[in-house]
Amino acid sequence: MSCHPLTPRFISRKQLAGIVVVLLCSGQLTIAGVRQSDPLPSWHKSETKTAILQFVQGVTDVQSPNFVPEPERIAVFDNDGTLWPENPLPFQLSFSLDELKRRFPEEPTWKDDPFVQEALAGNLPSLLANHYQGLFHVIELVGSGLTTTEFADRVRAWLSTAEHPLFHRPYDQLAYQPMLEVLAYFRAHGFKTYIVSGGGVDFLRVFSEHVYGIPPEQVVGSNSRVIYELRDKAPVLIKTMKDFFINDGSAKPAGIHQFIGRRPIACFGNSDGDQPMLEYTTINNPRPSLGVIIHHTDAEREYSYDKAPRSSGRLVSALAEAPQRGWLVVDMKDDWLKIFTP
Amino acid sequence: MSCHPLTPRFISRKQLAGIVVVLLCSGQLTIAGVRQSDPLPSWHKSETKTAILQFVQGVTDVQSPNFVPEPERIAVFDNDGTLWPENPLPFQLSFSLDELKRRFPEEPTWKDDPFVQEALAGNLPSLLANHYQGLFHVIELVGSGLTTTEFADRVRAWLSTAEHPLFHRPYDQLAYQPMLEVLAYFRAHGFKTYIVSGGGVDFLRVFSEHVYGIPPEQVVGSNSRVIYELRDKAPVLIKTMKDFFINDGSAKPAGIHQFIGRRPIACFGNSDGDQPMLEYTTINNPRPSLGVIIHHTDAEREYSYDKAPRSSGRLVSALAEAPQRGWLVVDMKDDWLKIFTP
Repeated sequence: MSCHPLTPRFISRKQLAGIVVVLLCSGQLTIAGVRQSDPLPSWHKSETKTAILQFVQGVTDVQSPNFVPEPERIAVFDNDGTLWPENPLPFQLSFSLDELKRRFPEEPTWKDDPFVQEALAGNLPSLLANHYQGLFHVIELVGSGLTTTEFADRVRAWLSTAEHPLFHRPYDQLAYQPMLEVLAYFRAHGFKTYIVSGGGVDFLRVFSEHVYGIPPEQVVGSNSRVIYELRDKAPVLIKTMKDFFINDGSAKPAGIHQFIGRRPIACFGNSDGDQPMLEYTTINNPRPSLGVIIHHTDAEREYSYDKAPRSSGRLVSALAEAPQRGWLVVDMKDDWLKIFTP
Repeated sequence: MSCHPLTPRFISRKQLAGIVVVLLCSGQLTIAGVRQSDPLPSWHKSETKTAILQFVQGVTDVQSPNFVPEPERIAVFDNDGTLWPENPLPFQLSFSLDELKRRFPEEPTWKDDPFVQEALAGNLPSLLANHYQGLFHVIELVGSGLTTTEFADRVRAWLSTAEHPLFHRPYDQLAYQPMLEVLAYFRAHGFKTYIVSGGGVDFLRVFSEHVYGIPPEQVVGSNSRVIYELRDKAPVLIKTMKDFFINDGSAKPAGIHQFIGRRPIACFGNSDGDQPMLEYTTINNPRPSLGVIIHHTDAEREYSYDKAPRSSGRLVSALAEAPQRGWLVVDMKDDWLKIFTP
């Protein structure tokens, strides 16, 4: 009898191929001569990229003094300005303004709301004053009174028709390609990736899974109470403005504690509003940790801003703090080969 | 040359064993003649047990009309009375009373707190009146002002010394063995298991992982705001009583929405306080769903109660509703071979 060395009896070629796939996937087999592919192909080779790769390699290598057990590998990501743009307006504000205009004729009480007036007049600085009080008010207002299902349907309808004024794409096709690679790379190394955003949690959860691969239960955002009731014998949850929690600035570590209950070991942000969660992640953490700031420096391909007053993306204090804290600063212009998925 | 049929050339016996393990683990291989072990050995064979097994088999079988994709397999479990006892007092109340007594001499403001007086006098009915207002007040009070780390340390210290008055075990060794099997069985079938409890989330998270295998980020409970600050240059979170959210009754579906953002497909509870989340899980759910009530009927091995007024485990309305809703009712006396891990 003859035995072909690569297709032994009782294991067909197809079965063997299956075995190889399983072994490759389980990491028990590597193919000599096949170059390990770059997990971050949209990132220029730089010290920043190397530091990110080395951090992940360290915390996932059982032999390394930096090893962190898988359950503790929590990575948190700001959304606006970190995973997608926040200019000319944070996208949820664009949605809210569109909704204000659309529904204004049928909402008589909105006429007397000063923030609605400011919003419809396009007076954004006044919405952004006092820690974005007006902005958050308007955002909450367009959800309040709707069921969670109705609200999600409206967000979906808006995403399917609205278009970004500069990039002329649907908003949910504007995730930063280099950050999608970071998310996938971290997850492939046993991290749970979370969004921790000032945006409304019910807004974010509509697209977090299809845009970022982040399931709804891993989204932390601004929120207020919902009321449960049986309506026409079916369960519904009604959005209210009660106990409104703005998940920004020093509220972000609080939100992380409330929703996740573990200290992250990696944090990506882009503004002073992310500084407290960068601190919470990296200062006195008994585990190795990584803090990263995305610096918007690319006026040609995206936007260049940091010191703009009253911008949701103002970045002054966190940038000044970065060197002493060891936070990496990503220069979008120099560090990213591309900004968006082609 | 000779080729042993089971150990072909180029694949050693050891390698083959590895392949078999991988294939078994990945479900691509089954061994004929090996009897499938019972995943719920502490459950008597009954219609209830069969219905639970059939539900899980249906939602995990790609060929079944009941199949549910893995990301949507969310199962929620009440804690007190569902995963461990709630008598003679809910365990967090025992902890809180012990803490009240221990710290009373050094907390001058507590003297004027009527609920503290009632608690120290052992006047439990008055703590349980008005939807357990006093109970929750006292529970919050013993955490308020502490950092989250200090609070967790106190819970840990208490668990290491306190003992249940009837079972004479540390409280964290009183999980119901049949429910531990349910948790493991659901997780082995791609479910994410969540605690959704009226208990405080910071209390539950101290032991949820080592007692139930449920990580902190999968615990939903009563909560109030924490304040972030840098204290002696290190990040701390301070517990307050602000925006106190009691995660019980109709607040449970709200808590599920706020923390998980998906509708569960399986829900286990034991009291009328769990009825809204049983409804939310099972009524008009586009996915197949399972509702289960643990009925405390075993005065000999645990406790028998359901109609007791002002008990946190009062079960009247949900029990009456069970047949029409198709909720399974577990009779602890008849359905469970054992209550606790020996």
